[in-house]
Amino acid sequence: MISTDIHLLLTGDELMSGDTVDTNSSMIAQALAEWGHSVAEKMTLGDDRARLVSALRRATGSARILIMNGGLGPTQDDLTAELVAAAAGVALVINADAEKHVRDWCAARSIEPNDANLKQAWLPKGAEIVRNPRGSAVGFAIEVDGTLIITTPGVPGELQAMLPEVSDRIVSIVGGGGVHRVRVQTFGIGESTAQALIDADAEPWPPEVVLGFRAGMPQLEIKLTAASASPDVDRCRQILERLIGDHILGEADTTLASALQQVLRDQGKKMVTAESCTGGLIAAMMTAEPGSSTVFEAGFVTYANSIKHSVLGVDQMTLESEGAVSEPVVRQMLSGALARSGADIGIAVSGIAGPDGGTTAKPVGTVWLAWGTQDTMHTLRTVLPTDRAMFQQLVAAAGLDLIRRQLLGLATIPHYFSRRAI
Amino acid sequence: MISTDIHLLLTGDELMSGDTVDTNSSMIAQALAEWGHSVAEKMTLGDDRARLVSALRRATGSARILIMNGGLGPTQDDLTAELVAAAAGVALVINADAEKHVRDWCAARSIEPNDANLKQAWLPKGAEIVRNPRGSAVGFAIEVDGTLIITTPGVPGELQAMLPEVSDRIVSIVGGGGVHRVRVQTFGIGESTAQALIDADAEPWPPEVVLGFRAGMPQLEIKLTAASASPDVDRCRQILERLIGDHILGEADTTLASALQQVLRDQGKKMVTAESCTGGLIAAMMTAEPGSSTVFEAGFVTYANSIKHSVLGVDQMTLESEGAVSEPVVRQMLSGALARSGADIGIAVSGIAGPDGGTTAKPVGTVWLAWGTQDTMHTLRTVLPTDRAMFQQLVAAAGLDLIRRQLLGLATIPHYFSRRAI
Repeated sequence: MISTDIHLLLTGDELMSGDTVDTNSSMIAQALAEWGHSVAEKMTLGDDRARLVSALRRATGSARILIMNGGLGPTQDDLTAELVAAAAGVALVINADAEKHVRDWCAARSIEPNDANLKQAWLPKGAEIVRNPRGSAVGFAIEVDGTLIITTPGVPGELQAMLPEVSDRIVSIVGGGGVHRVRVQTFGIGESTAQALIDADAEPWPPEVVLGFRAGMPQLEIKLTAASASPDVDRCRQILERLIGDHILGEADTTLASALQQVLRDQGKKMVTAESCTGGLIAAMMTAEPGSSTVFEAGFVTYANSIKHSVLGVDQMTLESEGAVSEPVVRQMLSGALARSGADIGIAVSGIAGPDGGTTAKPVGTVWLAWGTQDTMHTLRTVLPTDRAMFQQLVAAAGLDLIRRQLLGLATIPHYFSRRAI
Repeated sequence: MISTDIHLLLTGDELMSGDTVDTNSSMIAQALAEWGHSVAEKMTLGDDRARLVSALRRATGSARILIMNGGLGPTQDDLTAELVAAAAGVALVINADAEKHVRDWCAARSIEPNDANLKQAWLPKGAEIVRNPRGSAVGFAIEVDGTLIITTPGVPGELQAMLPEVSDRIVSIVGGGGVHRVRVQTFGIGESTAQALIDADAEPWPPEVVLGFRAGMPQLEIKLTAASASPDVDRCRQILERLIGDHILGEADTTLASALQQVLRDQGKKMVTAESCTGGLIAAMMTAEPGSSTVFEAGFVTYANSIKHSVLGVDQMTLESEGAVSEPVVRQMLSGALARSGADIGIAVSGIAGPDGGTTAKPVGTVWLAWGTQDTMHTLRTVLPTDRAMFQQLVAAAGLDLIRRQLLGLATIPHYFSRRAI
């Protein structure tokens, strides 16, 4: 019996060997979620004729939609068209639309189509092509025993370009659409804390709005989804603003760095970094964003103590008596960086990223941060007992957030540090 | 009929929604590959009772091994133990080993075990536990209709810690072992070029040694695998050395940064960076490696032209007449960085990362690099027409490689630039 299920069948030896991490199925699921649909079952197989035939047999006549991914290329391993034709009980024929696509694709590259190129135009008789704006292999769609099979290529960039048409074809059959989603980017708050604040709030959460979380590093994305455009989504956005407003960076794809860049630009200010334990990561995060040259003045990676002194003017006596990981040193690092660069605001960090270098008084994970301006400078010590990579990422992310908070006049010490600062 | 197949069944709503990219199955496949085994079929389902029952029914009595991943936690969504018990036709009982594990785990954290904790000690009657060194939920193993089911937790760090025991249990049943694998890390050469050089080589490649590639960014891993410890693997390693030796960074998990760190340490030298378009990424890559403080002296992120002048002493007239992306400017940046830091060797880069800022003479993707010492300085211009993130990564990676090459006395201009330099 045919259900309304959407199944996913991925194929490729590289997915079975562990050499490739499958990001395609996540991409497909997210595209479907925009229309309120989800994947019910997902099967992954190598380029193995017998297993693929058996999986096709299981899906056809039971799932309403079967999305296949991979196996559309020009080599002998690429079995998709042949096996779908067999499942449909039809022949492989030259598809005129597919052939035109291959010939146009080759012509645009001034190459003569060869047999391998043209193999990609042989599709099951009766199939309609799914356009591929980025590659030579088109996808196709064909109905088999009440199941619409839609095939897509394994190359992620090509798949992405084809997903709008794939979604259209699915929505035309199983309906959907009208989903209204707002993605809110936050920093410094965990999923369980956010959920607890919402649960404890006096204002009831509208049941029409589904709350979702997506934990990235270092941000937490909060998703508000409703079946259709509804004032409830806006109301939930306001509840979030009231409960965790100072953790909200922005919507859609806003990052810590892009949010900070926007604030700096709004205020016509420029920033500087003085990094020891993060080794340039704060600067790299800021400059990863387009447009950073308008707000990012300079970064000093003063790894060696002698450089802290010679470049930033940190007092050698202080370095010796207090150690590089100390409040006076980060203060002087910040002060020196501001003075040397002429920037308006900045951040300085010095800590022990590990795995070596810890002591009883300053264990691995200890970090001192100083941020602000020559006139208004704040400092904080915390201990983040984690591995080196995570330590560097957390300190760098917090560094950006502390500047953002100071510029916006938010609580100087965010709660994620007030719980931890020691 | 029971095959020798190993199947994988992953469960978790987060794997179906697209919110989580599945890295566990790659981790499992790689652990199995160490023993010469591979995953034949992989199924992924949400926390859905009916579908899980049906998938268990299909696998038991056909696969020899079924590895399950996920669904072992303390919540109601965690169905694995219950459904495996049903498939085996046995009751869920308190497993003494599992209970001891939960109680020890709680005791180490000074908490009293609650019902949720203790739920994780209820396992199918007759199951043996698979130890979990990192979490409160153990895995378990039980034979059902000739299929050994091994369950593992979805948390990647816990799974990783359990894989040695999982592998042991699998090898004790289906044999394996003796696979000899050498992983060679390279930079600056593509898979097709490496393959073509090997194909064209006069020395025949021993058929016993399987050649594999794993394209990371920015490195390419070349894997040499033989069924057992064999002199052929060493011979292949030598063929690679002869054909692409100067692209080889090292074995196992060697990175560009760790390879360079080793060379610097061997020669007792320290390095410095002066970055514009990469914005601190070169410094961040170096300092991501433990032990970098012994070889990394300082990094200057001189984003603004005024900083190039005031901090590194780049001549203002040159900046105006030649522009920041020019040979004399990167030379002066490097010279200034070496002088200010006292480091032995360094790299300076200035380019147009985009998406804006390009001109006809200097399109987006243009970059000038200068590297070496005050006495022996090299420069190079190239154009890398790609997106901002990729541009920054390629330039930073090449920067580290150029220093490594100079220190080792390898070809000054690697072939990946001699093809591109303009």
